[in-house]
Amino acid sequence: MRNIAFKLEYDGTSYHGWQRQDNAVTVQEVLENTIAKVTGEHTSVIGCSRTDTGVHALGYICNFHTNSRIPTDKFPYALNTQLPSDIRVLQAFEVAADFHARYCSKGKKYRYKIINTTFHSVFQRNYACHWPYPLNVELMKKAAQYFIGEHDFRAFMATGSSVKDTVRNVYALSVEKYAHEIIMEISANGFLYNMVRIIAGTLLYVGNHRIDVEDIPYILNKGDRTQAGITAPAQGLYLVEVYY
Amino acid sequence: MRNIAFKLEYDGTSYHGWQRQDNAVTVQEVLENTIAKVTGEHTSVIGCSRTDTGVHALGYICNFHTNSRIPTDKFPYALNTQLPSDIRVLQAFEVAADFHARYCSKGKKYRYKIINTTFHSVFQRNYACHWPYPLNVELMKKAAQYFIGEHDFRAFMATGSSVKDTVRNVYALSVEKYAHEIIMEISANGFLYNMVRIIAGTLLYVGNHRIDVEDIPYILNKGDRTQAGITAPAQGLYLVEVYY
Repeated sequence: MRNIAFKLEYDGTSYHGWQRQDNAVTVQEVLENTIAKVTGEHTSVIGCSRTDTGVHALGYICNFHTNSRIPTDKFPYALNTQLPSDIRVLQAFEVAADFHARYCSKGKKYRYKIINTTFHSVFQRNYACHWPYPLNVELMKKAAQYFIGEHDFRAFMATGSSVKDTVRNVYALSVEKYAHEIIMEISANGFLYNMVRIIAGTLLYVGNHRIDVEDIPYILNKGDRTQAGITAPAQGLYLVEVYY
Repeated sequence: MRNIAFKLEYDGTSYHGWQRQDNAVTVQEVLENTIAKVTGEHTSVIGCSRTDTGVHALGYICNFHTNSRIPTDKFPYALNTQLPSDIRVLQAFEVAADFHARYCSKGKKYRYKIINTTFHSVFQRNYACHWPYPLNVELMKKAAQYFIGEHDFRAFMATGSSVKDTVRNVYALSVEKYAHEIIMEISANGFLYNMVRIIAGTLLYVGNHRIDVEDIPYILNKGDRTQAGITAPAQGLYLVEVYY
């Protein structure tokens, strides 16, 4: 059997995230059904991570095993003619038999997009977080520095998560302003549930003077979710890259 | 009575253009209904132009007469809380009693957006024309020069239009490439029906070597629609600015 990996781009607006669910349409389900149409085989696709409802992907990685004889480089063309227009297979790779999109991942990069204008942009309403209040981007950049490195990110995890090891290593965290758009990019060896969105929400609170920059190390140490900022909305979040 | 003008931004994806129609939802209808909700008055809104189904606007101008006492600068806030998220009132102005958004217009500027990649971008599928074939942008720029100035644009008008005077003055026409995105901007004293989309389609044909650059003056002179390129799809088109 061949082991095929896909790099996907998807607009998460209409999906209840990646992972198959009983009563909601997910990217995994749509992709598995389309693979079945194209190859004639019912297969289970392994995703690099769950993503939440409304979250987008620019470089989602998944893999599946198949006996299909479709040449690897023809898979994107074969799938894309059958997939809905909000999911694209950008590339296909033949990978080693033991490659597993989730277990083999060494880390990921996410982007969070903020539009800082009085009224939301009609074109970005599903593709960014609209923030109508003043933002001091220099403060956000300063705060970002405190997240870099190995820390216990318990305070930046959705309450109710059952993960025990809450230490993660943030490789990089940048905040850049382009006209009215603020782009945050974060890469780490792994992420706790809602970690990127809570860090984004905390940076928004820092930029809006609701949290003091110098309180960030304290919030990290204390490990108390209620001290951090809001969970910024899903539609601003993009999975950009998965490291292997 | 006060005469109020609005500058609107809208995502045309879900609308059958600007103008009220019996069996389809249009921007005009939604705006008039929302003004009625906010002011309690049924009013007719005058638009600067019809736009086609799927066409977007960054700076659409319209006006209406009202006895409402809502302060002019509060209108955007009052309307935006009631409007669907794909229409925003960006600004409101109190204008002279005889101001008419269509008759007073001295010209307009449109943008046409092309994404030149193998597979379409899921995020731009409703906001750009996807062109998967090679494009020589230098040839497109050369061709663009021939459209500038006063010409009879009969060859660049949808067949079946009944307009008699087909002479228009194109003030500027630029073609710029940013990574995989090609942006065409055109401003003129007026536009024939589908003129921007047919010029865009003709430039795409020039870039793809289906029409020779040097044939453009000939096509303009001949005035034969069949010699020009395709009508490029509506979703790539944006009304950017209206001149008064």
